[in-house]
Formats: sequence, C-alpha cells, structure tokens
Amino acid sequence: MTQTPDTNLQIRLAARPKGLPQESDFQLVEEPVPQPGDGQVLVRNILLSLDPAMRGWMNDVRSYVPPIGIGEVMRGLTVGEVVESHLPGFAAGDLVSGIFGWQRYAVARARDLSRIPPGVAPEVALGPLGMTGLTAYFGLLDVGQLKADETVLVSGAAGAVGSIVGQIAKIKDCRAVGIAGTDEKCRWLAEDLGFDAIINYKTAKDLNEEIRRACPKGVNVYFDNVGGEILDTALRNLAMHARVVICGAISQYNATEPPKGPANYLALLVQRARMEGFLVMDFQARYAEAQADLGRWLAEGKLHYREDVVEGLENAPKALLRLFDGSNTGKLMVRI
Amino acid sequence: MTQTPDTNLQIRLAARPKGLPQESDFQLVEEPVPQPGDGQVLVRNILLSLDPAMRGWMNDVRSYVPPIGIGEVMRGLTVGEVVESHLPGFAAGDLVSGIFGWQRYAVARARDLSRIPPGVAPEVALGPLGMTGLTAYFGLLDVGQLKADETVLVSGAAGAVGSIVGQIAKIKDCRAVGIAGTDEKCRWLAEDLGFDAIINYKTAKDLNEEIRRACPKGVNVYFDNVGGEILDTALRNLAMHARVVICGAISQYNATEPPKGPANYLALLVQRARMEGFLVMDFQARYAEAQADLGRWLAEGKLHYREDVVEGLENAPKALLRLFDGSNTGKLMVRI
Repeated sequence: MTQTPDTNLQIRLAARPKGLPQESDFQLVEEPVPQPGDGQVLVRNILLSLDPAMRGWMNDVRSYVPPIGIGEVMRGLTVGEVVESHLPGFAAGDLVSGIFGWQRYAVARARDLSRIPPGVAPEVALGPLGMTGLTAYFGLLDVGQLKADETVLVSGAAGAVGSIVGQIAKIKDCRAVGIAGTDEKCRWLAEDLGFDAIINYKTAKDLNEEIRRACPKGVNVYFDNVGGEILDTALRNLAMHARVVICGAISQYNATEPPKGPANYLALLVQRARMEGFLVMDFQARYAEAQADLGRWLAEGKLHYREDVVEGLENAPKALLRLFDGSNTGKLMVRI
Repeated sequence: MTQTPDTNLQIRLAARPKGLPQESDFQLVEEPVPQPGDGQVLVRNILLSLDPAMRGWMNDVRSYVPPIGIGEVMRGLTVGEVVESHLPGFAAGDLVSGIFGWQRYAVARARDLSRIPPGVAPEVALGPLGMTGLTAYFGLLDVGQLKADETVLVSGAAGAVGSIVGQIAKIKDCRAVGIAGTDEKCRWLAEDLGFDAIINYKTAKDLNEEIRRACPKGVNVYFDNVGGEILDTALRNLAMHARVVICGAISQYNATEPPKGPANYLALLVQRARMEGFLVMDFQARYAEAQADLGRWLAEGKLHYREDVVEGLENAPKALLRLFDGSNTGKLMVRI
C-alpha cells in the first residue's frame, strides 16, 4: 500500500468568534498527508458531522472537553475509510468513525477508532445509528426516564436529534409534541414523522398557550435542545414529577452576553420535577444495546431521518452557520 | 367538657403584599371560638411555625397549594392541644399538629391531625422532628442521594432546615459547607454544629472563589434554600454527577420582578448533573422512618437545633419579616 499523492486539506480555528462565527474565524490550509506510525492507521475522511456543540468548543472556556486551540484543526466527528493500516485488525477499505476533525486525512490509534458495521452507510453511521441517534435514545429513555402514555415535548424538533426524539416517543406509545421554526419543518414532523402536535415558535402568538393546548395533561419529559425563552416557557407547563433533559442550548451558543437563566426554574419545586444534563459519551458501554434498537426501528420503517449534506470541506464553515439560522432540517453533514 | 369562654384571635390576609409584607397586609380579628362538630376536635394552638414558603402562599399564584384568599386566616403549621374532642381516639390534653393557621383556635377532623408522641415538646415537634427536620432529611438523603465522603454545600445554612442539612451531612461522614449572612451565624455553624467550612456571602470578596476553596473536590450536593446569585455561583462549582436540591428560594420570594433564572444552568450539562425540586409532604409515608433516625441523633447529641421563639400571635406578621432580613437563626416560631 503506498502513500496517496494527495494533500491534507484542513480547516483550522483562526480566531475565537464573537457571536456568530465569521469566515475569518476559520483558516483553510493544505498540509502534507500525515504518515501513520506503528499501531496507527491513516483515515481518509468521507463525511463530517456538523453539530451545535462545535460552537461551544470554539470558545476559550473549559467545558467537558478543552477548547479548540487557535491554529488547531477544528474538532469534529467523521466517518472515513482506512487507506493505510499499521494496526492489526484494520485494513485498507474499512469504514471507521472517530473525532478525526475538519480535514481530509487523519492518523488514528486503536482507541480513537470505532468500526462501522458492514452495510451501514456513512450518513447512517453519523445519523440515526451514530451519536445523533444515541443522544436521542439515551437522553429520552435513560435521562428522561420515559414511561408509556406520557407526553414528550422536544425543542429543535426538526434537528437531527430532536426529530429522532419525537419518533422514539411515538415508538414508546407516547404523545410527541415538537417545537420548530418554519412551516416546512412543522409539516415534515407532522406528516412524515407522525408527531402528534407541532408548534412553530416563530409564528406562535402565545407560545405558552400553544404548549398548553398541545400538552393538555402537561409535559412529562421536556427534551431541550435550545434553552432561552422556549425552555422557560416549557417549564411553565411541566406535569408533576416531570423530567427536563438538557441536551443543548442552541439559542445561547452565539450569545455575546451571559445566557439568561430559566427564570421559571421554581416550577421544578412546585411540580417536584427534575432538570438534568447529559453527554452521550457517558453511555458508551451501552451503545450496542441502543444501536440494536435503533437499527431494528430503521429496518421496520418506524424511524425516519433526513440528511442535509453539504458538498466540500471548504464549505463547512458556512454550513455550520445553518445550524444557527434555522435553515437546517435533519442531520447536517459535509461530504469531504 | 365545656366551651372555653375565650375568643379566637386570628390573623387574616388583608391584602396581597407587593415586595416585603407590610403590617397593613394583615388583619387582626377576634371571632367566637368555633364549635367542633361530630368527628371533630377543638384545638388550642400553642406554637406556630413561621416558614419562608408562607410568603409565596400570599401571592395570587396557583402553586403546589392554592393561594391564601384575601380575608382568609393565614395558613400555617402549628402544634396545639386538644381542648374538646368529638373524635374517638383523641382526648382533651392531647398534643397534635396540623395546618391550623395563624389563630388561637381551630376545629379539625381526623385527616387534618397528627399526634405528637408523648415526651416531644412542641418546639421539637415543629423543629427537628417535624417538617423542618423531615425537609432536611428527605431533601438531602433522598432527593440529594448523598453518599459517604461527598461534599454538601447548603445555603441558608443557619436557617431551620439548613442547619439540620449540614449536621446530617456530618452524621453521614460527608464534608459540610454552609453559606450564611452574619459572622454570628457562621460562628454558630462552625463551632456548635461542626460544619467544616462556612462562607459569609455578605462579606465574601469573591463568592465563587470562596466556594471553590471550601469545596476543593467540587460540590456533590448543593442544597439550595435561597436561589438568586448564590444558586448561580454554586452551579459553577458542581462536581461531576452533582445533585442540586431545590428546597426554596428565599432571595426571590419578595421580588417584585420575575426572578432571575440560574444563568449557569448549563453546568448541569457539562457536569452531567441534576437539579430537582421537592416537597416534604410527598414523603409522608416515610415520616416515621425519618423521625426514628432524627430522634436517635437528637438523643445521641449529634443533632443540635436553635429555637427562635417570638411571643404573641399579634407579633407574627413582624416576626415573619425576620426570615427575609437575615436576623433569624434557627427555627422561627410564634408562641400563641
């Protein structure tokens, strides 16, 4: 196996964004393709997942992962193909997944790699069978402790995770209510995905009233992807012993001021409710169990997903903004 | 047994307070002593518990209990003596407890009554063996899921509930860190109650830094009685998988603007932590179990409490304010 004569196109963090990232916060560079050493593989990235959390990694704030350093390759989950292997058990042509970054090539060791099972397309490996589906699954069922006949309210419902949350709620015989920001998204959720009710928060005259009407028995699980006013209004509609699952806060990620906290948090006391954050990686030991369920639901036609694939790594910075301006539906990815 | 020739002194809600209650928000009235019917007892109240939650009940807001109506007797937990009984199993002289209100006499049925065991003083029945102790017990151990060697941070630490929370933490071999507002309170908590560290939030130059120093391994359980800035700062210091127990929000109860939510709530996500509200009455089925523990700790000298008893029902409105101006230490009660 010989080194490919290609170059390694990379997108690096050039500056810390203030508010929405600008093109100038990123830098496109070309590097020589790296050489895998002993116990390593060379991966050619095929597909890059774009996720709201990436915006947080660009800030100089210690979080559950360190910030991306200025001049470092942007962090990102990808699916790629092994093109050169010095690692027993992996061979050229194997499809793998890992945090291989916004770049064409990466060198990886065994602990950085997970193998994509045969027959699973890269789009599915990053979507319903990957972090996206796993986040929805563990967030709703484990953190949210969903029980049959309950009402699930999910914000960012047309997003990659939100759209799966609502469908798992339906699979579990629950009422699924989604909040999204365009009529087209609402139609998709209601007509194609079977949500019981959808609220367009941008056109809602009175969001609280619309949530109340859509959740007449109150909200048992609120799965929050957005934070801000929507979280605050959801808190007003909790049922007794409700669970609020904090998956993200996309409305806050580009804020230049400290986020507004949920003023109605005392609803947790009145309703003896709980608000809990989670990260999917804490459930790693149980991924296979979840993937078995998710795979079966996909095969049975109970779980649908939409891909939103942007062509070309150089377009990733602009594509990332689509997570924040409401123009993205389903799983946003970049084909490298 | 004959009707006592006394009158029923009552304190009623005259107007809904704006901000801190004024004397004019209360009305002192004298009524004839009520007549117990069949299956009822007449209780002469001895001791009235004053609790921060009362301020919330004075607002026209549906919460876990309906608001006190204008013209209605102020709601309140008391210990009293049965003076006339038409209820089998209860006799004149029995000490009982119940929501008998800010008044000298009340008529009660079986379901409103709980009997004070022989040998338990009214002060103890409202304090460490009553709602106060039970709130600390279930909040810390059940909602907070305290484990040995953890760090407990409690706000309102010199209050009735807070002071017991810290002592239970010590009994359970944990580190107890208290936040209080006067040096005298801090001394009491450190010297008499055995807290490991105390922070005076009013004189702290940098509350965050002081919490960090007092909780070097992070906060495993934050027991919040106050809300506001202290809650927000505590959130910055959570350990992984921390539990934030929402017991009250005394800093917010007299706010004339909507409360400021905890801006740092995304710490719940970063630390995979949980924030949960509770009401002690949900644990009613397990009161006896808790009281057995609390009673044993009292007998063993492991649990100390301070009474703050105001004489005379007519002084209750003014006394209530002492919960909000920082001048109260320990369990605030009114001797009727």
